[in-house]
Amino acid sequence: MPKQVNHRERREAIAHALWRVVDEQGWARATMREVAREADVSLGQLQHYFSSRAAMLSFAMDFAAEQTAARVAGELAALPQPPDPRNALRIALTAMLPLHPDSRATSRMNAAYVLEALHDQDLHEQARAGMSEGRALVEGVIRQAITDGQISGDRDPAVETDLILALTGFTPLLQLEVISPDAVLHAIDQHLERLFAS
Amino acid sequence: MPKQVNHRERREAIAHALWRVVDEQGWARATMREVAREADVSLGQLQHYFSSRAAMLSFAMDFAAEQTAARVAGELAALPQPPDPRNALRIALTAMLPLHPDSRATSRMNAAYVLEALHDQDLHEQARAGMSEGRALVEGVIRQAITDGQISGDRDPAVETDLILALTGFTPLLQLEVISPDAVLHAIDQHLERLFAS
Repeated sequence: MPKQVNHRERREAIAHALWRVVDEQGWARATMREVAREADVSLGQLQHYFSSRAAMLSFAMDFAAEQTAARVAGELAALPQPPDPRNALRIALTAMLPLHPDSRATSRMNAAYVLEALHDQDLHEQARAGMSEGRALVEGVIRQAITDGQISGDRDPAVETDLILALTGFTPLLQLEVISPDAVLHAIDQHLERLFAS
Repeated sequence: MPKQVNHRERREAIAHALWRVVDEQGWARATMREVAREADVSLGQLQHYFSSRAAMLSFAMDFAAEQTAARVAGELAALPQPPDPRNALRIALTAMLPLHPDSRATSRMNAAYVLEALHDQDLHEQARAGMSEGRALVEGVIRQAITDGQISGDRDPAVETDLILALTGFTPLLQLEVISPDAVLHAIDQHLERLFAS
């Protein structure tokens, strides 16, 4: 189905253009018109691929989540198998934080997306579903590590999952250079150290 | 100086109008024109108080930070004196999270402000200074608690401060209803329990 593939590729190219606009100019300036200009297509062509700004954003976020998941899967595959749960959690967490150019762009997109979702029921449901899915993956790793005796059985898996997810709160502190990347990695390692030493 | 007072009051009324627009319609729609409409002043009058959207936002953020600080100070004053550092940290943390209507509006403003600051040098400096000041306050409480033996001396105060600040990462998880307010408070209490039990 070459036409399908081409459609998907064009949508991905537009998503990349959207990320660049958000990254360079900020969320408020990422209009359909500006994204069309950045993607080097006409506004009419853009509207052929996305019927609205919300539809474009929704696709771009799904695509960003897929890219992050692929990056995490690639790093996990490079570890001795099966991956150590502590390393797996560290890789997943650091992939969500703005620590390198790819994740800087997607984490900025993500923050904009959450704000937009607070005023759009469809985006809200999509964002909520994506985060809940991520939460379930982390909880699965923690439950398995408790079963395998790598985390003490007196830890509550739901609480530990929530505390791991909360560490994504380093995002604005990194974006505004209040805390250095090294300090963030050190704090994450301390948190995981205590969780797995328990 | 009645004229001064009136000037300040008008600016605060405009800041409240801005919060309402951001809260109800989202960041992208909070233009000078829309805020003027919400504050029931003309665009010309609004421009008399704020020369630009960035100046308006900057004032509104400072004002939000002052309101949060006043709320924290009020709650701290209601405790037996001197306040227990664990309670003080709990009060400061929960004031920053979207757990009640006032902090819901300011935390949404805050997220929008961080995004805007990534593309505006003055806002970036203001946001960075505000966060660094907050970080220094938290570190002061933790260092004192270590000195007083309430936190074990083998804890690194910088790391513990960063881990406390990271807990503001519950914000998007609360905003999108991925984690309940009760679960967030429980996780925060667990974190503080371990810090002070150490």
